[in-house]
This record gives sequence, structure tokens and C-alpha cells, in this order.
Amino acid sequence: MQRIPEKYELEKAYKSLKSHVHLTPVLTSNYFNRCSGATLFFKCENFQRMGAFKIRGALYALMQLDKHQRTPGVITHSSGNFAQALSLAASMMGISAHIVMPHNAPEVKKAAVREYGGIIYETGSTSLTREKEAERIRIEKGLTFIHPSNNRNVILGNATAAMEFVHQKSDLDYVIVPVGGGGLAAGTALAVAYYGKNCQTIGSEPFEADDAYRSLLWNKIEYNKTTNTVADGLRTFLGDENFPIIKKYMLKIIRVEEKEIIDTMKNIWERMKIIVEPSSAVALAAVLREKSQFQNKKVGVILSGGNVDLKNLPF
Amino acid sequence: MQRIPEKYELEKAYKSLKSHVHLTPVLTSNYFNRCSGATLFFKCENFQRMGAFKIRGALYALMQLDKHQRTPGVITHSSGNFAQALSLAASMMGISAHIVMPHNAPEVKKAAVREYGGIIYETGSTSLTREKEAERIRIEKGLTFIHPSNNRNVILGNATAAMEFVHQKSDLDYVIVPVGGGGLAAGTALAVAYYGKNCQTIGSEPFEADDAYRSLLWNKIEYNKTTNTVADGLRTFLGDENFPIIKKYMLKIIRVEEKEIIDTMKNIWERMKIIVEPSSAVALAAVLREKSQFQNKKVGVILSGGNVDLKNLPF
Repeated sequence: MQRIPEKYELEKAYKSLKSHVHLTPVLTSNYFNRCSGATLFFKCENFQRMGAFKIRGALYALMQLDKHQRTPGVITHSSGNFAQALSLAASMMGISAHIVMPHNAPEVKKAAVREYGGIIYETGSTSLTREKEAERIRIEKGLTFIHPSNNRNVILGNATAAMEFVHQKSDLDYVIVPVGGGGLAAGTALAVAYYGKNCQTIGSEPFEADDAYRSLLWNKIEYNKTTNTVADGLRTFLGDENFPIIKKYMLKIIRVEEKEIIDTMKNIWERMKIIVEPSSAVALAAVLREKSQFQNKKVGVILSGGNVDLKNLPF
Repeated sequence: MQRIPEKYELEKAYKSLKSHVHLTPVLTSNYFNRCSGATLFFKCENFQRMGAFKIRGALYALMQLDKHQRTPGVITHSSGNFAQALSLAASMMGISAHIVMPHNAPEVKKAAVREYGGIIYETGSTSLTREKEAERIRIEKGLTFIHPSNNRNVILGNATAAMEFVHQKSDLDYVIVPVGGGGLAAGTALAVAYYGKNCQTIGSEPFEADDAYRSLLWNKIEYNKTTNTVADGLRTFLGDENFPIIKKYMLKIIRVEEKEIIDTMKNIWERMKIIVEPSSAVALAAVLREKSQFQNKKVGVILSGGNVDLKNLPF
């Protein structure tokens, strides 16, 4: 088992990233307060650079590379935000980023990666195919592999979002975070444990991709047989770096139905006038589903990102 | 000709509204700075109560009514944001709001008016029909008519958005505002003239509804023969209360094509992750169209509102 990161390591990540990422705002909504019976605070990582928290982890992981690793460049496999995040972070640091993406990834996502200077390799759509292809290219070109979520420095970088959050709102009772590959979830749980005051982290997941819920239940990393969820950022599974942190510091995971995700997403757009992706709506949907637990509590909701294809909305 | 409001009248409106409306944030965007060559600041009235600046004017107009006017209630005709704004403002003050709307107004807008407690009267879709019906009901019920834009107190209330803006960013060179019925445009021009430091107001309009542009050109209120624009909030025309203010204090009006409006709106959604309505995109589209004027200038853009029908997007 990996050693759980200590407080000074989060401190270091925070100081390193501070001047390179946006301090994203915290919004409130009278409407959702009325709906939930809680007092809600929304940490708007959809306003983060490249539209999601992922730039934090990507950039911090690259900052930790030595000169010999930086020169040839880095590689990852991702069909989503991490592909963009690593491309942008690498271009900020003058490093090459090689991205293995499924050939059927949306054109809008490939275009974003290219815009940030990432070099795309198209491959099959299963994660096994992508992993093998990434490994082949890594060896061939002498690159460093950066996993999108199961990487200690990625977790530390991602933790800085919740560090900001509990600093901006120091009296939160809960922070609710979506759980995908576990990189944001683990970072959030760490930050809340070290910097929160009587605050606990709760995860949220679609029923259709509830691997993390089952992982906590059976005390071992579980996988998804199907991932038939609109929350495309949450189809991945945990790893040995983030699972121990989630197990130790996450109170529980609330699962939500697809209809709840879509309705909540539409409601956030209509009421708050901000664009969030389905994965972000999962966190608020969890609070609305299990209202009783949150009555009169101060609840922080992490809106993880806002990258959506406007031509292909789920509502 | 009406007397142009003086500074102390804006001061009074600001004090009256301060605790009843949101102090909306000012956002920035590196992307649009790069696109325009200017340094842009966006005043986010899309985050205002009921999703648009209109609550400011509606509420301030109602605050000025005496007891004998408040008891029977108020009436307006509007197919858009002012219908919602007057309904919400009236419900906040315990006054009845009667709203004459075209029978073909989108169901989503009627639902919003009802939600805020407004009483709807459906009528024909021409403005003449609506005006006549509103006048009939006004007399029958002894109501006070509140015009959506050509009302002195509505203009004063709307002015508070730009008063906040030039306070939040005191070194703006220009403030760009969309021109519809002229209520926001006149309020903004007044606020910038009285509180800006070497700052000027520029209007923006679709070519397809350029009545205000022609009004400035011919020095009399002009109308639109057709209003074939996606910017549904800008199809109306000026009036005797707001035209003298616009004439005196607005530097000029920039007109934009429909494609520019739609592209800019989509770009704002995708890049800034905020929801704005087409009318708001007109203001930024004007800056992007006439870039040369704004090079290295500090330009404030008023994003007037964010009420859109997600089922019926123009892109």
C-alpha cells in the first residue's frame, strides 16, 4: 500500500500552483438552498483554466519532473479533460505531451487537445487497448507516463481546489465531490481532513458507474461492467494511489440515477446561469437525493468542470 | 423633452436598491482579451436575480409608487425579461402584477411569470394590440402602467448596474451596452457620464433591429420595419424618456450581423462557461467587430441577462 500524502506535501503543491491556476470563485444559490434545505456553496472549477480542475493535477505532476524527463516529454491516455489538461500544462512548461485517445472520441475534444499543442494518437476504445498503446509509445520515445488520476502528484495538485475551498468557506460541514478515477476525490478528502474544521468529504457517483461505492463496500478496488452514464468523466475506476486515501478519509458515497443527473445539470444551467458538465451535476444531485442528511448544514459542492459539447446536450 | 435625470437621482436609486439586488461579479477572459486586443471586463447581470438586469428597474419603479397606486397593482406589456422582472419585484413588495403577453410567447417565459406570481393576459403578437389591451385592463382595474424601458424610474434603477460596474473597475475607457428599448442603454450612459473617469458609453445593436442607430443618425426616434434578429431582447424601440439621454451621452452605436451574435454567444458559453442570452452577446460582438478602436483599451461589457430556452438554442 502507498503511503498517504502528508500535510506538508499539500502545502508544497498549493504554493507551487498558486500563481499558475485561477483561484476559482465560490457561488451561492437561493434557489438550490430552498430545494435542499441546506446552505450550499459551489466551488466553480468549471471556471478553472481549460474548464476543469484537471489542470491542477496535470501541472503539478509536470512540475515534479526532472530535466531528463522533461526533455523527451510525457504521455497519457484519456478521452476527456485530462487530455486537454496535460496538453495545456505541457505547453505552459515547454514540454511535449503525447495523448492516446480513442478513435471515437468527440471531435470537439480532439480539437481542444490539438489547440493546446498535444500530439494525438488514435486507438481502440477499450481502456486496455489505450493502455497498451500508451505503453508502446512510452517505451519507443522514452516518455514519462502520467496517469490521469492514480498518480500521487496529480492527487496533490487536485487537492489544491479543496484547500482553496475550505479557506474561502471555513465553516463547511460537508464537501461533496464526484468520484471518477479518484484523483479529485482523494485530493479533496485529504484537503478536507487536513484543513477542514469538523468537515467531512462525501463522494457522489452515478448508479451506472458505482465502482467506487462498491470498492468501499468490499474493501478492494472494484470495476464497472458497464458505464452507461451521461457523466462521462466518472466512468473510470480507482487505483492503488487514491483508493487508500478515499477509504481512510471519505465518509461515504451517495449514488444517483441518470435522470437526477440530467435534471440537476439542466437546473444548474437555468438557475445559476453557469455551464457545468454532467459529472459536476452528480455532486449536487447527491445532496438533493439525500436531503435529510444535509438539513441546515453548510454544504460545499465541487463543480468539477464545464467542458461540454453544445451540439450534444443530454436535455 | 423630458428633463435628463441628475446625479442625485442615480444616487437615490443606488441606495434604495442596494440591499435588494445582487452586486453582480465582474469576470475576465484571457481568451477574449487575445481575440480583441483589448482588456475586457464583463459585468455579469446574467447572475442578477431572475437572470437579468431588469429586476433593478422594475423594483425601483415599484418603490416609487404611493400607497394608492400600490393597492390596485401594476400592469405592463412584455414578452420577455421585464414580464418576469415586474412579477418578481411586485411579489417582493406584496403588489399585484398584471402582465399582457403575446399568446405565442414561449411557454418557458409564461411559466416563469406565473412562478413569480404575475397574472398573465394573452393577446395578439403585435405591439399595438398589446398596448391597447394593457390600456383597457389598466383603466378597468385602476392599475398603474409601468413601461419596460421608457420610464424614468426604470432607467434610474437600471443605471445602478453600470454604477456598480464603474465602481468595481474605475479605470474603464469604454462601457459597451446592448440597446433594446433603451432603458439599460440610457441608464448606463447616465451612470458612465456621472461616475466614469474619462469613460464613454458605446451602444450595440443587431443590423436587423438597428432602430437606435438610425434614431441617432436622423435625430428622431426611428422604428424597426422587421425585427428578424436572434437577439429577442433588442427588437423594441426607444422612447421620449430614454432617447434624449442616449443622444446626449452615448458616443455611438456599433451594429453587428446575426452570425456574429450567434458565434459570440456560443463562444461565451464555451470559453467563459457562463450562460448569456443573445442580446448580451451583441455587446461583445460589437467589440470584436470593431477591434481597432479598442486596442489596448480597458473595455467594460455589460452582459445583460442569461434567460434562454435551452430547448431552442440558436447554435
